[in-house]
Amino acid sequence: MDQNLLDDLVAANRILAEHGVIDAYGHVSLRSPDNPNRFFLARAIAPKTVQLEDILEYDLDSNPIDARGAQSVNERFIHSEIYRARPDVMSVVHNHSPSLIPFSVTGVKMRALFHMASFIGEGLPNFEIRKVKKGSDLLVRDSGLGKALAKTLGGSAATLMRGHGSAVTGDSLVRAVGRSIYLEMSAKMQMQAMLLSKKITYFDAGEVKASAPVQDYKRAWPLWREKALAQAKAGRL
Amino acid sequence: MDQNLLDDLVAANRILAEHGVIDAYGHVSLRSPDNPNRFFLARAIAPKTVQLEDILEYDLDSNPIDARGAQSVNERFIHSEIYRARPDVMSVVHNHSPSLIPFSVTGVKMRALFHMASFIGEGLPNFEIRKVKKGSDLLVRDSGLGKALAKTLGGSAATLMRGHGSAVTGDSLVRAVGRSIYLEMSAKMQMQAMLLSKKITYFDAGEVKASAPVQDYKRAWPLWREKALAQAKAGRL
Amino acid sequence: MDQNLLDDLVAANRILAEHGVIDAYGHVSLRSPDNPNRFFLARAIAPKTVQLEDILEYDLDSNPIDARGAQSVNERFIHSEIYRARPDVMSVVHNHSPSLIPFSVTGVKMRALFHMASFIGEGLPNFEIRKVKKGSDLLVRDSGLGKALAKTLGGSAATLMRGHGSAVTGDSLVRAVGRSIYLEMSAKMQMQAMLLSKKITYFDAGEVKASAPVQDYKRAWPLWREKALAQAKAGRL
Amino acid sequence: MDQNLLDDLVAANRILAEHGVIDAYGHVSLRSPDNPNRFFLARAIAPKTVQLEDILEYDLDSNPIDARGAQSVNERFIHSEIYRARPDVMSVVHNHSPSLIPFSVTGVKMRALFHMASFIGEGLPNFEIRKVKKGSDLLVRDSGLGKALAKTLGGSAATLMRGHGSAVTGDSLVRAVGRSIYLEMSAKMQMQAMLLSKKITYFDAGEVKASAPVQDYKRAWPLWREKALAQAKAGRL
Repeated sequence: MDQNLLDDLVAANRILAEHGVIDAYGHVSLRSPDNPNRFFLARAIAPKTVQLEDILEYDLDSNPIDARGAQSVNERFIHSEIYRARPDVMSVVHNHSPSLIPFSVTGVKMRALFHMASFIGEGLPNFEIRKVKKGSDLLVRDSGLGKALAKTLGGSAATLMRGHGSAVTGDSLVRAVGRSIYLEMSAKMQMQAMLLSKKITYFDAGEVKASAPVQDYKRAWPLWREKALAQAKAGRL
Repeated sequence: MDQNLLDDLVAANRILAEHGVIDAYGHVSLRSPDNPNRFFLARAIAPKTVQLEDILEYDLDSNPIDARGAQSVNERFIHSEIYRARPDVMSVVHNHSPSLIPFSVTGVKMRALFHMASFIGEGLPNFEIRKVKKGSDLLVRDSGLGKALAKTLGGSAATLMRGHGSAVTGDSLVRAVGRSIYLEMSAKMQMQAMLLSKKITYFDAGEVKASAPVQDYKRAWPLWREKALAQAKAGRL
Repeated sequence: MDQNLLDDLVAANRILAEHGVIDAYGHVSLRSPDNPNRFFLARAIAPKTVQLEDILEYDLDSNPIDARGAQSVNERFIHSEIYRARPDVMSVVHNHSPSLIPFSVTGVKMRALFHMASFIGEGLPNFEIRKVKKGSDLLVRDSGLGKALAKTLGGSAATLMRGHGSAVTGDSLVRAVGRSIYLEMSAKMQMQAMLLSKKITYFDAGEVKASAPVQDYKRAWPLWREKALAQAKAGRL
Repeated sequence: MDQNLLDDLVAANRILAEHGVIDAYGHVSLRSPDNPNRFFLARAIAPKTVQLEDILEYDLDSNPIDARGAQSVNERFIHSEIYRARPDVMSVVHNHSPSLIPFSVTGVKMRALFHMASFIGEGLPNFEIRKVKKGSDLLVRDSGLGKALAKTLGGSAATLMRGHGSAVTGDSLVRAVGRSIYLEMSAKMQMQAMLLSKKITYFDAGEVKASAPVQDYKRAWPLWREKALAQAKAGRL
């Protein structure tokens, strides 16, 4: 496995924490470029403390290839089942992104209104775990719940998870991370816009189609990555 | 007394300050694991400056065992009376958590809508000191007020305090700290959800029952603690 | 003049900036303890850059005793005229505290709802410069405007300034600084409470009377001061 | 070209990022004081990473004078067409200032209510790219779109850009930067004021006329610049 890609994954953990998308919880994974039936994900520790040696490899049943005695995150099935259902997805972020929760519990539809998060316009479903399992702790703890989540996600870039957060995908790690960051910002902006007026100009279909592929977050990545890896090297929290 | 546990308590002071739950005021205590009629609490200084030598031991009448000339916090009765009334409680946080004040002064009920703060669903009373003492400065300055607060708390995990903040408990220090942090976040989310819609999907009884015990904040603790103790050692504010 | 007190004033500049009450603008002054007709105020630079050598002494006509070639702040008349009108005031903060502006431009009355800012309950007037001078740049540029402001302030602890900020007083520097910090927080809380409900439990007269004198912010001061002076010494911005 | 002015431009990139007006995107330019048909703008990298060697010189057709192999920002036409249309403008900031987006998508008019952003009172148009190009990605990618933006801007100090951000001008770099920072703050204040009340006292014409020229942000600049250049020298992100 390319060392550079695993460094990217270490960086991604810290970048998401730095932007308030995840805190001591949440996780980000990368599908193996060598084997589409494998993915990389850190063991069950706070993302800001993740180092290279904390990253484990999993198969699509969420079994670690070599656990090395480490505890896996309970919700790794979010990742494995999305990878199974969506061959186009190369990276998955699961977060408790704070501005998404109000949308997830009210069912108010998120819509594209900021060009950096225009991918919202392709549709953003909301996973209601209660429809699948009553009286749950809301955690996606097994492959059954993971499959239900992946089904709700469908072909979208991301799905909200009611009372919990979201799962965000990308055809690259950079895109999954960038979408997570700007999804949080867009949620704040939409809340504010809805308080200001009932008449909001959202992106139209043509604008979504033109804008979403353009937003690859590649200008941001070197800035984010360099800062994150410098902190990782220094062992700074 | 276990040095490690007292380090935990030093860390807890800084962790709560770092998360904006307390500022130059507020305090956190730990019931002695050796003697259920004793607890540890820092002297009357700003939490971010607390070091090991600032921690005093108290009995359940809030008398310091050995004051060593230090000034005790006026509101230590919040701690002693909760420990007296609630044998299951091992740690108490008193804070001025900013997003709780609007709920405390409006009587709008906080409800569980975010899995990290699902314990809210077990009920969150609101202590109205005016019912006990008219024209007070709102401080819980004596055992009478402490007892009234503990009575309002009842069997709940936490109680708001009108125009003042809250008292949050846990069966461990980690849980009292974690609950305090996610209670503040959940309050913000609920305010936003209420502005977005009148129809909110709160946790149902089954979800509260399944989720609340699971949330122990143990994944977060090593991250929080390590950072806090590094700052304490460096004397950084 | 006591070096310690001037250090307090240097610290106060940085403390207010650190808490978001002032930014590159705003100022804080201290009445001379040796001569009630004199006060100390930094020259016209950004508060976060203030050092001991930037502090000038003024008389109550806002004339510098020894300008040493330094430029005075235009709005020093806020300070001099409040000191002239209010012998009890030992310190004045002028700020652009962001959460106060919405109150100042709507005329919505700020009321005491948080014990750390209970002094609001003694009344918080709003200075409308337009009543004194039409077509102004809103700056209190001369003694006439300063006198009008002091008249609006009357016997209150602070006055809002429409579209501009506020002037906050104290019988000590610590109190003027502490009140400024908690006034900003209280404004945020009141905005949120008003969005949550039309029925808010404000402090009653007895509570204001009991609480306001108690809040002296003395527990916070050593924390704030130590951090501020460490940064001042290091020349950190 | 004056080295000091280019240092100003490096600093401006970091200052805007530090204040949350730009993040990994957005840009700021400076018209050459030596040749009004030329301007300076960093190559397509995140503003916080900009150093002296990243700055390129452009003509008013947005052609780099000497590209040195560097990639130019797609939206440089915002700058060139504003410089062409407005000889009085010496600096242009393009940002995704988050509190402006809700105004841009609702058409709620921003008005002057805070003296530090009184220039809003001279009028703040909103560029609707859809009127010029249907199904766009919202980016100002060519001179035609740049001209349309400049036409919307007219003689104003700034224009919102629907679903995208804003373009802010100044007769100096300091003014364009200062206006960008206080425009973001003023948007927040106006949202809050509108939630508090339907009756808001905005600046009247006389106050706008008196205040706008006075606000030159010169007291802030040394603070902002020194901090930014210290970070740039240290290579800190």
